[in-house]
Amino acid sequence: MRTAIYPGSFDPLTNGHLDIVHRAVKLFDRVVVAVAENDEKRPLFTMEERMELVRVAIKDLPNAQVGNFQGLLVDYATEQAGSVIIRGLRAVSDFEFEFQLALMNRKLNDKVETIFMMPRETYTFLSSRMVKEIARLHGAVHCFVPEHVEKALWLKYGRKQKA
Amino acid sequence: MRTAIYPGSFDPLTNGHLDIVHRAVKLFDRVVVAVAENDEKRPLFTMEERMELVRVAIKDLPNAQVGNFQGLLVDYATEQAGSVIIRGLRAVSDFEFEFQLALMNRKLNDKVETIFMMPRETYTFLSSRMVKEIARLHGAVHCFVPEHVEKALWLKYGRKQKA
Amino acid sequence: MRTAIYPGSFDPLTNGHLDIVHRAVKLFDRVVVAVAENDEKRPLFTMEERMELVRVAIKDLPNAQVGNFQGLLVDYATEQAGSVIIRGLRAVSDFEFEFQLALMNRKLNDKVETIFMMPRETYTFLSSRMVKEIARLHGAVHCFVPEHVEKALWLKYGRKQKA
Amino acid sequence: MRTAIYPGSFDPLTNGHLDIVHRAVKLFDRVVVAVAENDEKRPLFTMEERMELVRVAIKDLPNAQVGNFQGLLVDYATEQAGSVIIRGLRAVSDFEFEFQLALMNRKLNDKVETIFMMPRETYTFLSSRMVKEIARLHGAVHCFVPEHVEKALWLKYGRKQKA
Amino acid sequence: MRTAIYPGSFDPLTNGHLDIVHRAVKLFDRVVVAVAENDEKRPLFTMEERMELVRVAIKDLPNAQVGNFQGLLVDYATEQAGSVIIRGLRAVSDFEFEFQLALMNRKLNDKVETIFMMPRETYTFLSSRMVKEIARLHGAVHCFVPEHVEKALWLKYGRKQKA
Amino acid sequence: MRTAIYPGSFDPLTNGHLDIVHRAVKLFDRVVVAVAENDEKRPLFTMEERMELVRVAIKDLPNAQVGNFQGLLVDYATEQAGSVIIRGLRAVSDFEFEFQLALMNRKLNDKVETIFMMPRETYTFLSSRMVKEIARLHGAVHCFVPEHVEKALWLKYGRKQKA
Repeated sequence: MRTAIYPGSFDPLTNGHLDIVHRAVKLFDRVVVAVAENDEKRPLFTMEERMELVRVAIKDLPNAQVGNFQGLLVDYATEQAGSVIIRGLRAVSDFEFEFQLALMNRKLNDKVETIFMMPRETYTFLSSRMVKEIARLHGAVHCFVPEHVEKALWLKYGRKQKA
Repeated sequence: MRTAIYPGSFDPLTNGHLDIVHRAVKLFDRVVVAVAENDEKRPLFTMEERMELVRVAIKDLPNAQVGNFQGLLVDYATEQAGSVIIRGLRAVSDFEFEFQLALMNRKLNDKVETIFMMPRETYTFLSSRMVKEIARLHGAVHCFVPEHVEKALWLKYGRKQKA
Repeated sequence: MRTAIYPGSFDPLTNGHLDIVHRAVKLFDRVVVAVAENDEKRPLFTMEERMELVRVAIKDLPNAQVGNFQGLLVDYATEQAGSVIIRGLRAVSDFEFEFQLALMNRKLNDKVETIFMMPRETYTFLSSRMVKEIARLHGAVHCFVPEHVEKALWLKYGRKQKA
Repeated sequence: MRTAIYPGSFDPLTNGHLDIVHRAVKLFDRVVVAVAENDEKRPLFTMEERMELVRVAIKDLPNAQVGNFQGLLVDYATEQAGSVIIRGLRAVSDFEFEFQLALMNRKLNDKVETIFMMPRETYTFLSSRMVKEIARLHGAVHCFVPEHVEKALWLKYGRKQKA
Repeated sequence: MRTAIYPGSFDPLTNGHLDIVHRAVKLFDRVVVAVAENDEKRPLFTMEERMELVRVAIKDLPNAQVGNFQGLLVDYATEQAGSVIIRGLRAVSDFEFEFQLALMNRKLNDKVETIFMMPRETYTFLSSRMVKEIARLHGAVHCFVPEHVEKALWLKYGRKQKA
Repeated sequence: MRTAIYPGSFDPLTNGHLDIVHRAVKLFDRVVVAVAENDEKRPLFTMEERMELVRVAIKDLPNAQVGNFQGLLVDYATEQAGSVIIRGLRAVSDFEFEFQLALMNRKLNDKVETIFMMPRETYTFLSSRMVKEIARLHGAVHCFVPEHVEKALWLKYGRKQKA
C-alpha cells in the first residue's frame, strides 16, 4: 500500500487544492491531506477549522483523510508510512520554491519522494491568499472554493449569506 | 470614449510609473491613476500624500487624472466606466503575479480587460520599495523619481535638501 | 481613430489567437491581424492560406481585418497608421522573448507602442506548433482551432473528415 | 496495478534519466521507459540503439521495461494501460514546456495524469544534447552517462576507448 | 590590488555562502565578507554573532576578512576600496532580484561592478531561511552549515548537542 | 596575472558584447574574447570576419585580445592560462542555459570558474540574432553595433551605405 502526503496551510482549502486531491486519490492507495501548523504565518482559520473544512470537502473520497503536523514534514510522512509527498505546481515562482523545499526534504530523508502535480488550468491563478483578499473586500468567491468554505469565509469577513 | 485605470500603491510614484502614464494617455481617451488603499502594507506616505504626488506629476496631461479605491479593483473600474486595467511589467516575477491578478479580475468581471505595458528599459530595475530603501539610507534618488517626490522623500527621511 | 496591429505567423490561427482578437476589437477602433511572411520558418500553410483562415474566422467582427507584411513590423504598423502592436502572452518564456522584441521595436520606432494581452486561461497551453504536431499524429484538434482550420489541417495531414 | 509511462527521446539515456527511473519504480508497480520516434529531431542513435541502451541500463529493475511509440503519447499510455505519465523537471524552462505538454495531453485524454519528478540535484545541469556536444568534442562524459552509453558515444564520435 | 565585497545578511552563514567565498578568494586579491545591518529583517543572530560565525569559518583564508555595513552597499564598497560586488546566484527568483539590485547599485555608483557566481550545485537549494526553519523544528542541519554554526543554531533553538 | 576568457559566437559582435568587454578589462589583467567555431549554427560571418570585427572593436583596450577555439571551452581556457570564464546575462532564459553550461564546465574542469556579468540595461534586449534579422530587413542597426560592424552587415545584406 502506498500512502501519499499532500501538505499545505489550507487557509482555507480552495478548488485548486481539491482538484489535486481528486487526482491524487487515483494514483495512490491512501492520500493524507496534511494541514501544517505554522504560527508565524498567522492563519485566518484555526487548525481545527482548517482541518474541518478539508474533512467536509473530502468526505466522499474513501482513500483520502485529513491530518496535521507541526514538525518536519519528512518526519510526519515517515510516521504516516507515507513514501510520497505531493505538491501542486501552478507557476514558475511556485516551481522554484517547491524545488528548494523538495531538495531539502530529500536531504533530510531520501526515502520520501516528492512529486509535483498540476491542477486544472482554470485554477492556475488560484491561491488561498487571493481568495481571502477577495472575501475581505466582499467580492464573489463561489467560483474559487467549495460552498462550505465560502460560508466559513463570510463568517470571518462579516458578509451576510444569500438567503 | 475609452477609460483606462492604472492602479497601484504609488508609495511613492516613480519615474517608471510616470513613464507608463505617458504611454497610456496616447492609447486611451482618459487614464485614471488609481491609488490603492491597502492598510496591510503600511505605506510610507498617506493616501492623501500619494494622491497629491501623482496629481502634481500628471498636471500637464489633460486626459490623465488621479483617483483612489478601497474595495475590489474591478468594482472601481466599473464605477469609473473603465474598460481597461493597465499594469506595468518589468520582470518575470512581476509577470506571474500580474497574470494571477489579471485572471482573478477577469473571473470577477469579464467586461474589464487587463493589458500590460512596458516601461522604458532604463526603468526596469525601478521599484518604489528600492527607492524608499535608498532614500532611507540617504542615497541619491533624483534619477528615479520626479523632483517633488524627491523632496517628499527627504521630508520623511530627514535629509536636508540641497540649497 | 486608433488602429492596433496584431502580428504573428498564424500557421494556423488557433482559438487562442482568436480570443485575443475578440478582446482587442473592444479596445481599439480597428484591429489588423497581420500575417508575417517568414521564409525561414517554413510554414505549413502558404501566406494565402493563412490569411484566408484568419479572414473566415473574423468575418463577423466589423472592425477587424487581415493583412500581411514582409519587412519590419514597425514599418508595417506606420503604413497602416497603427499606433499599437498587440502581443498575446501565455508564459514566462513568451514574456522574455516578447519583451526583447518590443524593446527592439521601440528603438526602431518609438511612436509605436506594444501592449500585451492575456488569452483565456484555457488557452495558455495552446500553440500553433502543438496543434500541428497533434494533427500530424491524427489526434483530435477541434478544441484548439475553429472548425474551418480543423478542416484545413486534415487536408494537409490526410485524415478523413468525420461524415 | 498502476503503470507509469516515462517518455522521452533518450538520445542517449543519461544518468539523469536513469535517476528518475530508479525513483519511479518505487512509486508505481510497472514503469515503461517509452522511447519516442521523432523523425524531425534527427537523433544521433537509431530507435533500436536507443532502446537497447535503455534496456541494458534497467536490466536489474524487475518492474521497469522499455517500449517505443510513434503517435500520440496519450494513445500509447492507454494502450499500455498506463494511468500516469512521468516527466523529469530540471529547470524553469523545462517546466513551462512540460506544463504546456501536460495540459495538452490532459485535453486529449483526461484519464491519463502527468506527474513531475526531480532528479538528483547533481543532474540538474544534465541533458542529452550537452552530453552529445561534449562527446563530439572528445571531452569526458563518464560522469554523465552509464558506461555502456559512454562506449556507444565513442563509437559514434570516433574516440578510442581507454585500454 | 583588487578587492571584492561579498555582502549578505549571513543569518547565519551556510555552506553555500562559504563555497562562494572559497571561489572568490581565487579570483580577487582580497575578499571582504560584508555582513549587512538590517533592522527590518529582525535577524536571529546579532551582528556580532553573525560576524563571529563568518570569522571562524574563513580563518584559514588569508585574503578573506569579515566586515559590516549599515548604509548603502556602494558606499561601503568605495570605503573598502572595493571595485567588485559578488553575489551568489542560485535560482531564477534570485536572479531577478539580484539584477534589479545590481542595476540600482550601478546607477548609484558606476565604478563598482557586480558579478554573479554560482555555488556548488548541491547548495542550490540552500538558504539561511530554510536552515533556520529546520533547526527550529530540531531537524538535522549538519549538511548545510559548518559545525560551529550548527552549535550556534542549537544554542538558539534549545536542542542539546550530541555528546 | 589573472586571465579571463569571454567566449561567444560573436556573429557579429554587438554593443552589448562590447559593453561586457569594457567592464571585464577593469576586473582582470587580461581578457581574451574567444570566438567559437560552431559549424552547426551556420554563422553569417566567417571565423576570420568575426575575429576581425572583434579586433577592430577592442584595439584601444591594451589588456584585451581576440582568440578562437573549436574544442571544449575549458580546454581552451586552460591553454590560455585562463582561470575565469565570463558570460553576459541578460534575461532569465539566458540564465538557465548559462547555468547548465557553467555547471557542465565545472564538472569538466573545476579549476576554471565561471562568473556572470550584466551589460548596460539599454542592451538587455540586444542579441546578434535580432541585429541580423533587422539588418536583413534593411532596418537601422547603428544603435546596436559599432560602426564597422554596421558596414559589414550592409555588405552581407546588400544595403547601400549612407554617402
